[in-house]
Amino acid sequence: MSGKTEMRIERDSIGEIEVPAQRYWGAQTQRCLSNFDIGWEGLPPVLIRAFAFQKMAAAQANMNVDVLDERRGDAICQAAWDVLDGKLSEEFPIRIWQTGSGTQTNMNVNEVLASRANEILSGKRGTDGEVHPNDHVNRSQSSNDSFPTVMHIAIALQTHDLLWPSLDQLHKALLQKADEFDGIMKVGRTHLQDAVPVSLGTVFAVFAQQVATGKKRLEEAWQRLMIVPQGGTAVGNGANCPPGFVDCFIEHIRKLSGFEFCENPLPMEGLATHDALVEFSGQLNALAVSLNKIANDIRLLGSGPRCGIGELLLPANEPGSSIMPGKVNPTQAEALSQICAQVMGNHVSVTVGGAHGHFELNTYKPLIVYNILQSVQLLADGMRCFTAHCVDGIKADEDRIQQHLDQTLMMVTALAPTIGYERAAEVAKKAHREKTSIKQAALALQVVSEEDYDRLTSLENWLK
Amino acid sequence: MSGKTEMRIERDSIGEIEVPAQRYWGAQTQRCLSNFDIGWEGLPPVLIRAFAFQKMAAAQANMNVDVLDERRGDAICQAAWDVLDGKLSEEFPIRIWQTGSGTQTNMNVNEVLASRANEILSGKRGTDGEVHPNDHVNRSQSSNDSFPTVMHIAIALQTHDLLWPSLDQLHKALLQKADEFDGIMKVGRTHLQDAVPVSLGTVFAVFAQQVATGKKRLEEAWQRLMIVPQGGTAVGNGANCPPGFVDCFIEHIRKLSGFEFCENPLPMEGLATHDALVEFSGQLNALAVSLNKIANDIRLLGSGPRCGIGELLLPANEPGSSIMPGKVNPTQAEALSQICAQVMGNHVSVTVGGAHGHFELNTYKPLIVYNILQSVQLLADGMRCFTAHCVDGIKADEDRIQQHLDQTLMMVTALAPTIGYERAAEVAKKAHREKTSIKQAALALQVVSEEDYDRLTSLENWLK
Amino acid sequence: MSGKTEMRIERDSIGEIEVPAQRYWGAQTQRCLSNFDIGWEGLPPVLIRAFAFQKMAAAQANMNVDVLDERRGDAICQAAWDVLDGKLSEEFPIRIWQTGSGTQTNMNVNEVLASRANEILSGKRGTDGEVHPNDHVNRSQSSNDSFPTVMHIAIALQTHDLLWPSLDQLHKALLQKADEFDGIMKVGRTHLQDAVPVSLGTVFAVFAQQVATGKKRLEEAWQRLMIVPQGGTAVGNGANCPPGFVDCFIEHIRKLSGFEFCENPLPMEGLATHDALVEFSGQLNALAVSLNKIANDIRLLGSGPRCGIGELLLPANEPGSSIMPGKVNPTQAEALSQICAQVMGNHVSVTVGGAHGHFELNTYKPLIVYNILQSVQLLADGMRCFTAHCVDGIKADEDRIQQHLDQTLMMVTALAPTIGYERAAEVAKKAHREKTSIKQAALALQVVSEEDYDRLTSLENWLK
Amino acid sequence: MSGKTEMRIERDSIGEIEVPAQRYWGAQTQRCLSNFDIGWEGLPPVLIRAFAFQKMAAAQANMNVDVLDERRGDAICQAAWDVLDGKLSEEFPIRIWQTGSGTQTNMNVNEVLASRANEILSGKRGTDGEVHPNDHVNRSQSSNDSFPTVMHIAIALQTHDLLWPSLDQLHKALLQKADEFDGIMKVGRTHLQDAVPVSLGTVFAVFAQQVATGKKRLEEAWQRLMIVPQGGTAVGNGANCPPGFVDCFIEHIRKLSGFEFCENPLPMEGLATHDALVEFSGQLNALAVSLNKIANDIRLLGSGPRCGIGELLLPANEPGSSIMPGKVNPTQAEALSQICAQVMGNHVSVTVGGAHGHFELNTYKPLIVYNILQSVQLLADGMRCFTAHCVDGIKADEDRIQQHLDQTLMMVTALAPTIGYERAAEVAKKAHREKTSIKQAALALQVVSEEDYDRLTSLENWLK
Repeated sequence: MSGKTEMRIERDSIGEIEVPAQRYWGAQTQRCLSNFDIGWEGLPPVLIRAFAFQKMAAAQANMNVDVLDERRGDAICQAAWDVLDGKLSEEFPIRIWQTGSGTQTNMNVNEVLASRANEILSGKRGTDGEVHPNDHVNRSQSSNDSFPTVMHIAIALQTHDLLWPSLDQLHKALLQKADEFDGIMKVGRTHLQDAVPVSLGTVFAVFAQQVATGKKRLEEAWQRLMIVPQGGTAVGNGANCPPGFVDCFIEHIRKLSGFEFCENPLPMEGLATHDALVEFSGQLNALAVSLNKIANDIRLLGSGPRCGIGELLLPANEPGSSIMPGKVNPTQAEALSQICAQVMGNHVSVTVGGAHGHFELNTYKPLIVYNILQSVQLLADGMRCFTAHCVDGIKADEDRIQQHLDQTLMMVTALAPTIGYERAAEVAKKAHREKTSIKQAALALQVVSEEDYDRLTSLENWLK
Repeated sequence: MSGKTEMRIERDSIGEIEVPAQRYWGAQTQRCLSNFDIGWEGLPPVLIRAFAFQKMAAAQANMNVDVLDERRGDAICQAAWDVLDGKLSEEFPIRIWQTGSGTQTNMNVNEVLASRANEILSGKRGTDGEVHPNDHVNRSQSSNDSFPTVMHIAIALQTHDLLWPSLDQLHKALLQKADEFDGIMKVGRTHLQDAVPVSLGTVFAVFAQQVATGKKRLEEAWQRLMIVPQGGTAVGNGANCPPGFVDCFIEHIRKLSGFEFCENPLPMEGLATHDALVEFSGQLNALAVSLNKIANDIRLLGSGPRCGIGELLLPANEPGSSIMPGKVNPTQAEALSQICAQVMGNHVSVTVGGAHGHFELNTYKPLIVYNILQSVQLLADGMRCFTAHCVDGIKADEDRIQQHLDQTLMMVTALAPTIGYERAAEVAKKAHREKTSIKQAALALQVVSEEDYDRLTSLENWLK
Repeated sequence: MSGKTEMRIERDSIGEIEVPAQRYWGAQTQRCLSNFDIGWEGLPPVLIRAFAFQKMAAAQANMNVDVLDERRGDAICQAAWDVLDGKLSEEFPIRIWQTGSGTQTNMNVNEVLASRANEILSGKRGTDGEVHPNDHVNRSQSSNDSFPTVMHIAIALQTHDLLWPSLDQLHKALLQKADEFDGIMKVGRTHLQDAVPVSLGTVFAVFAQQVATGKKRLEEAWQRLMIVPQGGTAVGNGANCPPGFVDCFIEHIRKLSGFEFCENPLPMEGLATHDALVEFSGQLNALAVSLNKIANDIRLLGSGPRCGIGELLLPANEPGSSIMPGKVNPTQAEALSQICAQVMGNHVSVTVGGAHGHFELNTYKPLIVYNILQSVQLLADGMRCFTAHCVDGIKADEDRIQQHLDQTLMMVTALAPTIGYERAAEVAKKAHREKTSIKQAALALQVVSEEDYDRLTSLENWLK
Repeated sequence: MSGKTEMRIERDSIGEIEVPAQRYWGAQTQRCLSNFDIGWEGLPPVLIRAFAFQKMAAAQANMNVDVLDERRGDAICQAAWDVLDGKLSEEFPIRIWQTGSGTQTNMNVNEVLASRANEILSGKRGTDGEVHPNDHVNRSQSSNDSFPTVMHIAIALQTHDLLWPSLDQLHKALLQKADEFDGIMKVGRTHLQDAVPVSLGTVFAVFAQQVATGKKRLEEAWQRLMIVPQGGTAVGNGANCPPGFVDCFIEHIRKLSGFEFCENPLPMEGLATHDALVEFSGQLNALAVSLNKIANDIRLLGSGPRCGIGELLLPANEPGSSIMPGKVNPTQAEALSQICAQVMGNHVSVTVGGAHGHFELNTYKPLIVYNILQSVQLLADGMRCFTAHCVDGIKADEDRIQQHLDQTLMMVTALAPTIGYERAAEVAKKAHREKTSIKQAALALQVVSEEDYDRLTSLENWLK
């Protein structure tokens, strides 16, 4: 910042500090900017949005229990609406890598709301007015209960707004393909080797089932996401939090967010641990595992066009190669599989952070919320693009599929219950060795009549 | 094995091979011993036990649907009972590191049961008799549906027999301590720094809550553990599995195990993916995160005896040092925290294995079941020992606790709602600088009367 | 973008598409923006910088071997300088989550450079001019060899510019503290329990040693970072790459970057695998492990101020609590330990991505480079802040240290070689039980004379 | 153990305890058996072997510096030889999950050696004799410096005995295949899609290169494995370790092991951290990443036999399916890829353990050494089996390879430098759409003469 920027003086319990005059933030935010000049990862916007909800609900609850006058309370709420309207989006410059309690972000929010509220009330920006960041905006709260409450709110918002719709879209698209491909029998593959036939419809029905169960798992974890420790204040014992505050807060936050948040009966648990978030991340990890399988199978089934498996035709969205003209690649599957690898790593970060809190406070809060919000966003966006630009456009190459089916040796399996495993193995080996079909080999070895062969290996037998 | 060992000839579809005459296993097991001479990790006994259940239920179902005669079927069941009775425990020499479908273990079981059944029926050990490993023992099955079914059974057995009791014991012990320590107020700590007081009882109540929720999470995942793909055979389409088999199998396996197993309506899902086990491992990981926090806090609170925090007295179970006489260490907490780190790593192995199956078969099955069974066993044993040799014997050092409480500066927090955050900060700094108590500093600064001070900072205010 | 934005038509081998007229990019970039609308993670600026170097070196090499005329070549170089000067920083909108080869970013760069070169030559922006993105800018190259080359360049730049200086600063600061604290004997702690004395200087010397070795490990991995696969083109066989190109490219990229890059003699290795980057990430992970230990020990030694260990006084950089006035927290240690957890997770993502490439191309390239660049940046920034705002300001609380030293029971260890382990253990137990000093207990038990006691337990014996 | 087992009384500083009379171990080992009844993971035999070396070298050094008489010292050495000869293999029953310093294993070794030495000297088994576990066997040592020294020795032994030979065998086998397949041109594949041709020999040369570099990385980490903290005793300051001991110890351990161990100049570093082992594990992780790629590519190239890629023919080692006769699977590749997943998880466990030591002692020692020894053993055994039962027997299916080569569209790439990227793309699309060859399409579009086509696409151009 050049010397010409107009500055004002702000102060906190450490002392005075200069802040750019046009900014709403105060001393602690300013101090943090130089103390924690680390990385490029700003706070995800949804976290700021969740904080605006939390501060508004707290101000309303404080007014309800008469520890905050309406003049100040209304001004704080109005300032919070400005945040929600995106009017103050430049005012939250603090990045993820800060104190482990998120105190600096909580104070950034407290300062900006106080400063804006003061401006509303008096026309003068700054924290040195009627509304004090700690005494009024943060009234009845601590960073230690507010920040984890906000973590839960932000993850819930992101999950509800982005993840649920993407899960539903992908599920629907896969089910539709399951339906579309219902009658198509194809070679199954186990150990990457040709196996007995399966229905291509079933393959996609399994994918759809994986996605549906993935959502179900997250919905179960969602129950514990709804439990928030607001009211625990600094160490979970509720010191300085007046009677009635929590009930009012919960009522307001439910209305504002639309979600069924509830009070943690042991708020210390919600400050000292993030087990509920570790669990949530674990279910995102399970979803990533499912999606990785789906993306991988689709790109393998679409491999070719001539020298691979080639049973699926994937949409050609862009030129595939800067040097090989005409090449088309399974780029959506690649983006999705990279996202899955990211989510797996994020889960390890969350696990390490979740496991190493001390005493009454886990100090890996920004790390944990950053990784989970990234996982949610990437999975949601990745599934949305994968659905629109890949799954929806998948076609079956029925010629290729039939050609494979005609060649496979594993039809021999259908003979085994009748002629025994060992004679059946002989048939398969003969066909493999002599490059004939199973039928030719079976008839040559006289282990079965042609009529029986046709009956036993009829494709209907393989359908489930 | 020396040249003198008596051998017999066994054969499979690859050809003939010599097997030690006193062993029950056949050609495929023998072949595997030289092909996969890897590592030291045998199959966990519970997996063999689960296999005996599975083969017995399959034989019964095969008899029910008339694809297996009673003579052979009964002999197979009798052989399976011998496995359950531990009479054949030397007969399963194959280790974890084999084919990814577990086929070699399935065939080991098929061979041993056939061989023992033949011995029962004819007095002659070996697979070359009335009962064939594939055609009879493995009837209506494939490794691809049997092995994952067995994975689910084994994990359920281990969880039920070891993990549930240990979780309950630890939960009970922690609750008891919560009760015992109910009235003891102590300094809270956030960021490892002195904070406002908390009840030691609440600290243990939170630990208990973590353990209880850890069990709840696993119970939710248990629902999906109950869904087994038996009947899917090789690729999930049920080829060679006769109508009625699955219903009968489910009925028998429920009776044998006592668990409410049910059929996977899309059995391919249970062969091609292990999402349910990735989820289960994720919940074990969440439990490890909780236990790590508990173990860590306990060893930190027990640090000392003179130069640490020293608020808890941990039982002295063994001499702590080979060089420092009289030293006693928090060894149970150390064992438990190492177990937690192991479970976190195991979860990554399970995640990688779960994510990388291809097409109709995930080929990381032995890896996945090995890691989960190890995690379950270690968590169960670790919690049992931690409960018996640590938690049960923990005592509070009330003198030390009171001494800390008398010294802390954070009582000042109680003054903030009355005198404001900034004046309160001045009081704290004065006390810190001048090494006095908060009360002395507050009275010196005349921010509050002695009467008000005593009322505001009364310990009752901190209790929740 | 509103309907009023002026657009121009761009085309690629898929067809035509509208692009905002003021933008330099072409059809493929535009296509990517809608196909991969995923996440918020843009390409790190250093990657764009590395790409400018790579394209410039390639253009020069192409001119050297006479496959590119000087008119076009110079225009491309001039355009690349514009990128380096930051004039085109808005032109690279593609995010990390794209095709796994980074083709879309390579094409983005090709298009922008072609478009800008055309503007230089003809005054007309767009790829439809003399300079073609593929035929000229990408001449003799593929995404498949260019992108991994750029990954190596970007990581080298970031490491050299940010990581080396931060490692050196932290190392120096720790050594200085080692020197400053050289004479201060304090209680050692093993298992978190009081042990025999150590020098505080040695504690910091060990920290310094960890950091120095951390750098050494990365320097060894750096050797393999210097090996780049440029010239391999699409699959590593160098198709369409003219003789002499690679030698010239290496010469130019060395000059531009200042690093000793060299040719990969088996370029396919550098396309199909990223083992060198997995290794590099592994050494970053090892550094994170070291830093986590250092940050943790410092915050534990600084715990208090009155109810913790309190042997170190950490700088107070900001108010520590929004509710507890006067509280100061080890925030730098918390930021650093969160960074360490992030790096550990990133390493898992890199490992998963590195392990799962197929055939001639690893398609996890953007994932891998993103995670490593994030790890490098965070470690570098985190160490820089930790040095400036924590290590440099650490002071020893010598009173507290001496007080602990006077109390410890582990002085008894010094008696063991003389009186035997078991009698020494009795002395320690007696002192512990009776809350006396070791000396008192030893003299009371008459196991040693006072003179011998003083000689044996002299602090000089513990110094190393 | 039944009531009839004859028992003797042993004692330690905690008190008396009964021990089975025929066992050599003493009180602390016995105590540990009930306190740590956790899991099934015994200490790897190589760790006991390493401990025998360490105790023998220590006894010799103690005699050299005159703190141990020759009568006792020789008896201790003789007892250690008995351990090395496997005579006492039943005497080390303690499992991995114990105190984090490994003290209980160190005491187990001290007790067994003392007991056996007493038996040698007096005919009477037990620790209550001339030779005391602590005062003589553990003389000049602590668990805290001995156990990490033994960790380094054990990992070095295992690496030298198992890993180096397996790495060399696999490397040699891959190079031999590279040579054998040198002239075979095949379709390259990027993004799993057909690309320009590559030599099959180069594919295997890259595999070989990966393995060679994997070894190189471990050799660099080996340097730091050679640095051992013996002499640091309890906290790294060398208390109770007489002058000259370390030099003598190093000399003896070098002779016994054959490795160039050296003293850690800051022994506290070797007690308080295991950075060198985290690094070693990181390099094992990098090797696993390489091997996973190799195993995956080989099983994909061997997929089929008729409906996959089928360019490689893998050896048929065992029947592949219990239900599909004649099926042969890539089982060695599956075992190896499972091992790779295990090593990746183990590395996370080692990372978590390495990062969370406190002060002068890392208390994750048994966890760390267990995971690394498992990783080394599995990688070594896995590579050995993979070499013998897979790589050595791989054959190229040249018919299939040629058939693919004849079909691929990517030959068009060779035309691009001459006819331009865009016209070339048109040729490829035409051929794809009309299911013709590239040549047919190119000639039909008249973009090139037949003569030029043949020259430009000659296979020699693709060879590198």
